Formats: sequence, structure tokens, C-alpha cells
Amino acid sequence: MAYEFGTVLRLSIFGTSHGPAVGMLMRGLPAGFQLDMTALQRFLNRRAPGSSPLTTQRKEPDRPIFLSGVDGNGRTLGTAVCAIIQNTNAHSSDYDALQDIPRPSHADFAAYMKYGGKADLRGGGAFSGRLTAPLCIAGGMALQLLQQTGITVGAHLQQVGSVRDTPFDSVSLTGQQLTAAGQKAFPVLDDAAGAAMQQVIMATREKGDSVGGTVECAAVSLPAGVGGPLFEGLESLLSPILFAIPGVRGLEFGHGFAAADMYGSAYNDPLCIENGAIRTETNHSGGILGGISTGMPLVLRVAFKPTPSIALPQRSVSLSRMEETTLHIQGRHDPCIALRAVPCVEAAVALALLEALLREGRL
Amino acid sequence: MAYEFGTVLRLSIFGTSHGPAVGMLMRGLPAGFQLDMTALQRFLNRRAPGSSPLTTQRKEPDRPIFLSGVDGNGRTLGTAVCAIIQNTNAHSSDYDALQDIPRPSHADFAAYMKYGGKADLRGGGAFSGRLTAPLCIAGGMALQLLQQTGITVGAHLQQVGSVRDTPFDSVSLTGQQLTAAGQKAFPVLDDAAGAAMQQVIMATREKGDSVGGTVECAAVSLPAGVGGPLFEGLESLLSPILFAIPGVRGLEFGHGFAAADMYGSAYNDPLCIENGAIRTETNHSGGILGGISTGMPLVLRVAFKPTPSIALPQRSVSLSRMEETTLHIQGRHDPCIALRAVPCVEAAVALALLEALLREGRL
Amino acid sequence: MAYEFGTVLRLSIFGTSHGPAVGMLMRGLPAGFQLDMTALQRFLNRRAPGSSPLTTQRKEPDRPIFLSGVDGNGRTLGTAVCAIIQNTNAHSSDYDALQDIPRPSHADFAAYMKYGGKADLRGGGAFSGRLTAPLCIAGGMALQLLQQTGITVGAHLQQVGSVRDTPFDSVSLTGQQLTAAGQKAFPVLDDAAGAAMQQVIMATREKGDSVGGTVECAAVSLPAGVGGPLFEGLESLLSPILFAIPGVRGLEFGHGFAAADMYGSAYNDPLCIENGAIRTETNHSGGILGGISTGMPLVLRVAFKPTPSIALPQRSVSLSRMEETTLHIQGRHDPCIALRAVPCVEAAVALALLEALLREGRL
Amino acid sequence: MAYEFGTVLRLSIFGTSHGPAVGMLMRGLPAGFQLDMTALQRFLNRRAPGSSPLTTQRKEPDRPIFLSGVDGNGRTLGTAVCAIIQNTNAHSSDYDALQDIPRPSHADFAAYMKYGGKADLRGGGAFSGRLTAPLCIAGGMALQLLQQTGITVGAHLQQVGSVRDTPFDSVSLTGQQLTAAGQKAFPVLDDAAGAAMQQVIMATREKGDSVGGTVECAAVSLPAGVGGPLFEGLESLLSPILFAIPGVRGLEFGHGFAAADMYGSAYNDPLCIENGAIRTETNHSGGILGGISTGMPLVLRVAFKPTPSIALPQRSVSLSRMEETTLHIQGRHDPCIALRAVPCVEAAVALALLEALLREGRL
Repeated sequence: MAYEFGTVLRLSIFGTSHGPAVGMLMRGLPAGFQLDMTALQRFLNRRAPGSSPLTTQRKEPDRPIFLSGVDGNGRTLGTAVCAIIQNTNAHSSDYDALQDIPRPSHADFAAYMKYGGKADLRGGGAFSGRLTAPLCIAGGMALQLLQQTGITVGAHLQQVGSVRDTPFDSVSLTGQQLTAAGQKAFPVLDDAAGAAMQQVIMATREKGDSVGGTVECAAVSLPAGVGGPLFEGLESLLSPILFAIPGVRGLEFGHGFAAADMYGSAYNDPLCIENGAIRTETNHSGGILGGISTGMPLVLRVAFKPTPSIALPQRSVSLSRMEETTLHIQGRHDPCIALRAVPCVEAAVALALLEALLREGRL
Repeated sequence: MAYEFGTVLRLSIFGTSHGPAVGMLMRGLPAGFQLDMTALQRFLNRRAPGSSPLTTQRKEPDRPIFLSGVDGNGRTLGTAVCAIIQNTNAHSSDYDALQDIPRPSHADFAAYMKYGGKADLRGGGAFSGRLTAPLCIAGGMALQLLQQTGITVGAHLQQVGSVRDTPFDSVSLTGQQLTAAGQKAFPVLDDAAGAAMQQVIMATREKGDSVGGTVECAAVSLPAGVGGPLFEGLESLLSPILFAIPGVRGLEFGHGFAAADMYGSAYNDPLCIENGAIRTETNHSGGILGGISTGMPLVLRVAFKPTPSIALPQRSVSLSRMEETTLHIQGRHDPCIALRAVPCVEAAVALALLEALLREGRL
Repeated sequence: MAYEFGTVLRLSIFGTSHGPAVGMLMRGLPAGFQLDMTALQRFLNRRAPGSSPLTTQRKEPDRPIFLSGVDGNGRTLGTAVCAIIQNTNAHSSDYDALQDIPRPSHADFAAYMKYGGKADLRGGGAFSGRLTAPLCIAGGMALQLLQQTGITVGAHLQQVGSVRDTPFDSVSLTGQQLTAAGQKAFPVLDDAAGAAMQQVIMATREKGDSVGGTVECAAVSLPAGVGGPLFEGLESLLSPILFAIPGVRGLEFGHGFAAADMYGSAYNDPLCIENGAIRTETNHSGGILGGISTGMPLVLRVAFKPTPSIALPQRSVSLSRMEETTLHIQGRHDPCIALRAVPCVEAAVALALLEALLREGRL
Repeated sequence: MAYEFGTVLRLSIFGTSHGPAVGMLMRGLPAGFQLDMTALQRFLNRRAPGSSPLTTQRKEPDRPIFLSGVDGNGRTLGTAVCAIIQNTNAHSSDYDALQDIPRPSHADFAAYMKYGGKADLRGGGAFSGRLTAPLCIAGGMALQLLQQTGITVGAHLQQVGSVRDTPFDSVSLTGQQLTAAGQKAFPVLDDAAGAAMQQVIMATREKGDSVGGTVECAAVSLPAGVGGPLFEGLESLLSPILFAIPGVRGLEFGHGFAAADMYGSAYNDPLCIENGAIRTETNHSGGILGGISTGMPLVLRVAFKPTPSIALPQRSVSLSRMEETTLHIQGRHDPCIALRAVPCVEAAVALALLEALLREGRL
């Protein structure tokens, strides 16, 4: 809804794929919080490219440089945090042809219609998946702050093409279960499903094609009562930052679209008392009612389209000649963006929840 | 992401279901725009309750009173527009029991956890579907402003339970087709599907139950180039206002979740030239790439859960006695909120697009 | 800096002098705060016109109607508060000539250049001093919230033409001294100065002229540490709402403009220890250093220009005929707006401080 | 009123005096604007320290590094511009004692009360005048954008202690006159007054003292009709960014505080017609009426306190021992901050006007 994310955090992300750097500026963090820089780097590595044959071969170490807001020991100073990642491994020449022939279903054409020739669209420019690196710096910090208050956020690759992972158990999910997937080389709950997904991805790459997928993300130990009605609802806080991740085409909470085909008598989550606390027997609501957390696990799913850049020839147009043509894309691309998006979704969810907690003075 | 919607419109919605009034305050409209108050009332009537056996029996005329920003002839003055609807037909006593026993899957419990006893939760308070009335005042104005620039927004009920309407043709959709559904008593494209849906709704009501549904909405003649990367993307502008509508559990653009099971070679929309203009042969992207409009029809779908208030007995808890109990809800409720949500979705989409256009100085 | 005031309060003021109503919408107030509606009305009466021969003869009872956010007993509900005052005593015909001949030094001409004929400029439209009535509703609520935490805000008329009241003692000022002036019929510390001011005002009215003035405002018991560097500074929070009061031409904190003619050795406020607490021996800084409160009384002064509407003939132009002409203004106007502005300044300061405290989770 | 400046520009300033860098992030600039980097550096040099015996001896080249939003040739790309200045010449050891003994009238004490020991307050931390360097990067860009549309902003040192420069002629001021002062080594209109000011500054430095001053700033060729009522007024846009400049204690528009001692018949600016355009014969209003520009020169004055850091011994307290003590400040400080503040005031005014124009789609 705005150019930044959050009214407390005011997170801004800047830079382009082939400019000097990408970076983020974030406010609102309390002073004196001790960051674990090693854990932050480990989190960034989950998103970083080049770590497996399943991802793009562009290699970037993705090492953040903190310019402000954090002291030399990784403690927050209470002022705005600026961190950048320098761009070192850009092959701009790969992209020269794309200035004239937009890639189908990539931002190229729409950005051309917006900026004409004035933008820096090399490597996707400001539309590149590379911009999720600074999102993950901010999100990695948010995850640590949440963890300190006992809140855990985690995600797994739930679907690649037609292969599906086991979903989270939205009633009894624990923090440990939640983060287990992220600690694996391939982020799934069920390793057999993971192996099948990897086969799909490798086969897709070999064909010069790409494939879509979904990511399921959850948060546990979020207290009940966070959020508010209408524009203050948690979904209205989570959705703009999740849709800001390149490639996201759908978002659902709890049972989501499946709720459309349900009756209230089956969908409604009965309230019960368990160990002296009010809980719900089922959690079709995904932990949010009326825009406010219920105290049950918050569960959401995000759909990613296939990577638009594929090696197969595609029908496109030459902007300069205004004629139809065939495009052959060079360059290094992920066959399935959903895979590297898993930590991005965690980052986005953590930032939205941190914003919600800070806004209500709960942190 | 904020308490209002939009950085130009700054739309605020206020009031509670059983307080003196509900209303809206909106800025950013150009001075001198002539509103058609009759058309606005007609639009509000589409959302208003009590017009058919398919909806709640609470009767409210939903007549807006303009307190500022519009002169006596319906012309905008360039200053903030405030309009209210007085609450006249509230049966607060119906809700007394609910103060103690939260309705499953309703905002009651979450709001109790947030506000304790301090909020006015009669009739759903600030969480009531009634708050969509001022949303529709604002949205009805937005629809008229968009219409004047040639942009049409329309929606239809696409699914009720397992019955589905024909989807919009996302490539060749016209403004006329788009608004056709809204002019019918039952807002579908295929009247046979509509008849089946009505049967489902009536049968559901008779059982004291409720049922979910989806609404599909589109905009045509939106120029290419509107939006921007990351948080500036159209999805990040549309999603928070759509999720602000009570009962929304999912949102997808174009092929949405179906994209997860597609290959890039099939999903990508080839670019072509038609009558001298660049278009795409298919429109799986739903008219948005990289957060920016492509000039193709913008198409999205919204999933609504079943109305949480049902007449059937449900398991819940007494907050005062902290014990499990059975809840029997009195009161008048819609068996399928998706039905009356059709104009609400149109309103939300129109407001988001108006914000995007105003922000870029295009209106 | 924005269309509303505050990132937590998000105060909006709407309406025009001769439209149906003026009003305010404010968020961010905690739920469950008990307002004293009698005290609020008493505060509004201090601003209301018609109470003395020193002010305009337009009589408006200025009774707020709460549409939302406050229950029938005056307790806040935690949701947005909307309150309006209906316009009942507008003499629009007095203003017909002014649509063509702008009043010198009034908003008329600038508003004409902005809106052309599209705005409602009767009675000053959105530029009227009448818009300070909703500011005072919001501010009166803020004063009560601050009072509850022990913070007192008060103001007095410090200057009318060349007559000056005693200034506040910026080191030892107490809450009781601070509110004393506001409880008088004529809000000064030194009644002899007040009598002289009244003579100036009456003589000015008789001549058909108007006169300028200044208001000094202070806050005591504001804790040290509120505010922040740069745009987060208290001055950057106070100044936009103070300059939003019609007629304000200058603002200074502590010694203000006098500091320009001082040496650091004389200006700097030495730190000392008094009863175990750190204080400053003098308070030339007006209680703010580096944008942050020091714990000393916050002291500021606001300069008001003479009322632009005067009965004496003035040189102006006819917009329709584009020729110079002489203007004779009818209508009822204050000879000295600074007088009725005293509670408005208190309201603005209270709102800015409330925003600062809420933003930092201190309330 | 917010953590950034502007709803379109969203200018953020970050960094601390002795951290790795200071910087700025700004949005909202149109794509394709050609910056003159040489002129920008020249502008930054006016603020940079070390250029004369009249300023601090801390030498910093103040060379901005653009990380995003501008291509290698200085053309804006339409995306967020991030520029930083690395801190190279910080003498942190000079500041060790100050961590325990706050400097009178410096932000030290207030910041300690806010952040405890958690902030980086070396060299003034985020409160340092050094943060005006990134303000001037942003402002220097704004000045060039305004210049392109024909609007000129300029300022001069109007007062140092009791010595005053000639004021701007607020009726007939031209762009050329306006920028003349800025091109001189000592920024005054009347060089004789300038010589006297320099004597005051040198004498003050020799005594180990500091002195206050005022800066007058104006803008010409700003079109009439920019701004709006209440919080949308130009004063409410200009004041928060001007008060964000460290050391500012007062701000007045046009006749400002002098208006308090004037009658309406003398203060009001008569309207007249000159060469077919409506103007005012005098300009006591400083070019703003009702928050909206009149088309006459916009004129304002800003009061600066004496530099708080002086070499003379001062009474302060030890925070650790909670006892009174005498402070002797080492380090390099400006004897008169108003001098180097002249371009900072220009920068702030240019940014506020650019924001106003962008907000209204006038650029």
C-alpha cells in the first residue's frame, strides 16, 4: 500500500540487479538487540544462488555490509539500519538483447511501458529476484527478534509442479517442527517428496524449461490479540509484503480457497479449553480471525509461477522494430524460483509479524 | 500495511455495527468531479441486506449522508469527503449472549483477546460486514471516476460451494461483458449456474448452515505501465484492501495457484502485435507483470469462507466461566457472504486502481 | 508533512465553514479511557465564538456529536473516533462578493489559484478558523489523556500588538501555574496586561481593524527522552500541527530567535543535580535538545497575524473583470485571532505530545 | 511528523557521525532527469567543513557515492536513490569523556535519557551536524530539479550575533539576486555586513565561545496554488524539515513574529494587477496564504542557536558518579553553525517545495 513496508519498520529496499549494490533501510528496531551475524549469514545462504545444481549459476556471496544502525559487534543502536550487498558477478552483456525483446511473462514489457528506456533493466533491474537478498537481510533480523520473544517462523516447499510435500499440522505444530525444513539442504518435511521434487526440477532444467511451486509458511507462539479490523488486519499486513516477492501469484490463509467449497458447520473451528487456555479444535482459519491472531499457529500458502526466463525459444516482439520475433534467452536462471523463495517467504512473514508486534508496543 | 488505504486517497473507515453510524473519510479526489448520486445508490443497493431471501433479513436503507467534500449537487470540492450511514435497525439484544460465548470462526474471540471487554462488539462491532457499506460508498465513487477515464471494473460470483460460474475470458473481455453480471439480480455470467447456486444457498439456509464462495473481478482498459516493483506492485496495493473485506481467505491473480503446477513454456504469455499494439496471446499473468499493469485485462479471484454465524448448535466456551458449552446463535445472517461481497470486491479493486492512477498523476 | 497528523493518531480534520458539518477522525487512542465530556465541552467553549465582545458575533454552540470510537458513557472503544459539529449559524450571503474579490492576506486568492471555482470557499471554506473546532475536540481529548499521565499543557496570550503578558518561568513552572490562565475569562498571567490587551482589541474593533498577537504554550512533567534525531525531533512533530492553525506566521522554542544574538557561553543551559535528578539551571532550550525532551518544561511561542478580514476598505481585484477595485468586507470577524487561538495552541501541542508518547509506547 | 520526509519523496537520512557512513534514501524522483554532478559537488562543498578558518577543522571531502537510482552518467532511473558519504576523518577519542559528561545544550543528555548507553553518540551520533551532508545531497538534487522548472531557491546569512545583513526584497526578488550570496565565499548580500560578521565569528572562536545567527531563505517563480489547508499547508511541509536541521530554534514566514505587533490595515497585502497578472503590493505574508503559495516570493527566516560545543569550561554533571563537575570540551567545532547551515536551509526548502510539486503532479 506504500513505498515502504510498515509504519514502524518503514522498510525500504533499493538497488538494481546490475547496479553498484542492492540494499535495505529499516527503522523501528529497539536499541541494544544483539544480532547473531553468523546465523544471519546462514539464513542468507539459504537464499543465495549457486549453492546447488537446482538453482541459477550466478554466484554471489551475498555478504551484507552494515552502514548504520548496528555497531561493530552486531548490536542495534536504535537508529535506522542500512545494509547493502555489493553486486559483483553481474553479466550485463547477457541482457543486451532483452532491452529490445521483452521476455514473455517477465517484468520487461510492463517496465518498458512504465519507464520507456529510462530504467536500468539489466538483469531484471529493480524487478530482479536479487532484490530479495536485502529483503532477507531485514527478514533475517526480524526472525531473530521474534525468536527472542519465543515466536518461531518457518516454511517449506509444499509443491513443485504436481509433487506435494506433507502440509504443516496447523493445530499441533511446534517451533522445532517448523524450522526443521529450513535446516535441510532441500527444504521439505517429507524427504521422499523432496527427492521427487528435485527430479522434477532437474528434468525441467534439462528441457530448458521452468516449473511453478508453492511455499507453506507458519508462525507459532504468536500471542492471541495481534492485529485489528479492516486495514489493520494481519492479512492486510502480510499480503503486501508477500506479494512484493517476485513471482508470487496467490496467497491463502488457513484453508484458503478450499473454504469456498465448505459449509460453515464443517469449516468453523470449535472453541475448546485445553490446559486452562482457550484453543480451537481445528484451525481452518489459519490462526487469524477478524484480522486478529487467535493464538493458534498462523498458516499461509504462497503460489509461485514458473521462472519466466527459460531457455526454450519463445514468441515475443522487437520493441524497436515493432514486429513479432522469436526470443532465445541466454543467462543463468533458476528452474524453479519457489525453491529459493522459501527463506524469502519466512523473511516476509517475520517482518510483517514484527511490524504488528512493534505497532502494538508488544516488543 | 497501514490504518488507512492509500497514500493519496487515505481512505479511512470508521464506526461499529451497533454504534450511531458507520462512515468513511477519503482524500485525494480531484475537485469538480460530478458524482451520479443515483448510480451510487444503485451500487450501494447491490450490497445492502434485506433485498432477497438469499441474504440476511436485517433491513438498512444504506443511504449515505455526505458531511463534507461534496456540494449539494454531488460535485467534489477537492477536500476530504466524509460520508456516513446511520445505523437504524440494530437488534443489539440478539448479541448479548455472544459477549460471553464467542462464535466459532468469528472475530469475537480474537477481538476479546485484543480489547478485553473494552470494545463495542455488538453485531460484530468494527468487524461486522456492515463496515463494507462505507467501503462501497468510497468504492462506488472510485468506480465512477475510473469509468470517466474509460476503465471498467466488474465482478461476478464465480463459485458457491461446488457450483461454478463461467470464468471471465481474460484475453478478450470487454467492459460491457464485465458489468453485465452486476446488473442482474443474481450476479453471474451463466444464469443456469446462478440458478444452481441459489438452490445451494436456499438449501443451506434451511439447514441453518452457511456456505463459502469465490468472487472473480476484472478491470479492462487499465493502461499498461501502472504500478512498480516490490512494495509498489499492483498486487501489494490490491491485496491489503481485498483482505480487509471480512471473510476473505485467499487471493490470486490470473492463473494464481494453478501456476504452481505449470511449466514456464505453457504458463508464459507470448507477446504479439495486434492492430499495431503489443498484447499477449494468453493472459495467465492476469494483467500484471513485475507489479505493473500490462494493458491486458486485470483478473483476480477472491475466496470467501462460509458465514461464521450459523443457526446450528456449535461447540464454544464461556469466557466468564472458562468452561466448554454449546452455542445457539440467534440473529439474522447471510447464508453466503460471497453473494453480497461481489460489489465489495468491485469497490476494493476500484479504490486500489484509483489510488495507483492518482499516485502516478494519471487522473 | 502529510494529510493527517501523526503516524499513530492519524488525525484528520474535514469539512468547510458553510458545509453541513466540520469534524475530525482520530485513531490510536487506547481502549477504555474515560473521557470527561463536561470538561471537554468547557475546553471547546474557550475557543467557541460569540462569548464576548472581543470576538466574532457568529454564535455556534460547538457541541460535538460522537459518531464512533466512544461509547454512550464517554469511554473510548479502541477504534477510530469520529466526531462532528454541525454548522448551524452560517450567513453564506455575507460571502457572495468574496467569490469575486479576494480578501487581502486571506486564503481566498491562493485557494482560487488552486481550486479555481471548484472549492466551497464560503466563510473561508476549508481555510476557515472554524476548522479549529474539530482540532480542539481532538486536542481536548489529548489534554485529558496527557493529564492522566501527569503531563499538563497550558497556554496564555502573551502579546497583543505591543502589549505583553509576563512570560512563563521556564525553569520552575508548575502544572497549576500553567493552567491558571486558561481558567480566566481573558487568558493571561498578569491581569493588568490583560486589561491593556482588551483595550487594544476593543479599540481595534471600533476602528474596523484587526491586530496580531502571540501565544506562549508550555508542557510540564513531560518525561526526558521523548523524541529523536532529525525528522523524529519533537520540533518536527510540533511544528506542522502548529502551523496548521490558520494565521500562524512564526514558531520558536525556548529562546528561539533571541538565541541568534547570544553567545554559547550565555545560551548553553548548565546541567546540575537537584534532589537527585539531573536538571538544567536555565532553560533557554525550551525543554528540547537534539529533538528530544530534557525533562525541563517544554516552552514555545507562536505568532499570529492580524485577522485578514477587516471592515476598513482595502485594495483588491475583481477576478472576473481582472481589474483593481476596493473591497468592503461585511460579516462577523474576530478583531484578534490570537485570543481564541489560545486553546487551539494547547490542543495542537497536546496532540503532538500524545503522538510522541504513543509512538514510543509510553502511554 | 514522520520518520521520513515527504509522502512522495520519502526521504530517509541514516548513519552516525563516527559510524561507517552517513547516507540518504529518496524516492519519487522522475526517471530520466540528468543530474549535474559537478554542480552537486559544488553545492556540497558549501556545507563541507574545513574550508575556512571560520569553521570546524574536521576535514571531510563529502563525496557522495551513489549506490542506486542514478546511472553512471548521473541520470535518474526512476527508482529509489541511495547515496552515502563514508566517514573518514573521525576522531572518536575526542569524544570519550563526553559519554560520561554531557555537553550543556547539546543532544548528549537528552539522547542519554532516551537510549541509555545503547546509542552511538560519538561525535554527536545521529544528532551530529554531519547528518546535514546527506540532507544536502538530497537537497542539491532537489535544487536542480526545481531549477529545471524555473524555480530558484537561495539563502543568505542574515544575522550573526547582533550584526545583520540586508534582507531580501520580498516583492521584487529575482532568481539571480537569490543565488548571488551562495556563490560568494561568505554568503551575504552586503559584503560590509559580511566582513563584520566574520570579525564576530573570529573573535568568538578566539575566546573559545560560539555565537548564534539567522538564515533567510527564499524561493522565486513558485507558481501560485501550491499547498492546501490545515496539515496540507506549505508551512506544515516546510517546518518539519527545517526544524530537523540541528540547532534550529525558530522559524518565521514573511513578517513572522513582527506580525504580532501589526494592525490588519498595515499587515494585509493589497492585491493589484501588474502586466496582466494578479500580485500583491507588499508581501508580509511571505508568499503563502492559507497554506498555499500566492506566486509572490516565498520568504522565511530560521534562527540558529550558538554551537553548543565550546572550549570554555562549563558546568555539567558526571552521569556515572551523579555529581556536578566542570566540563572542558576538546574536539573541533564550528564557532557559528548558522554559517555552514546556509546551504542546509536551501536544501530543506528545496526538498519541501519539490515534495509539494510532486504531490500535486506538477513536475
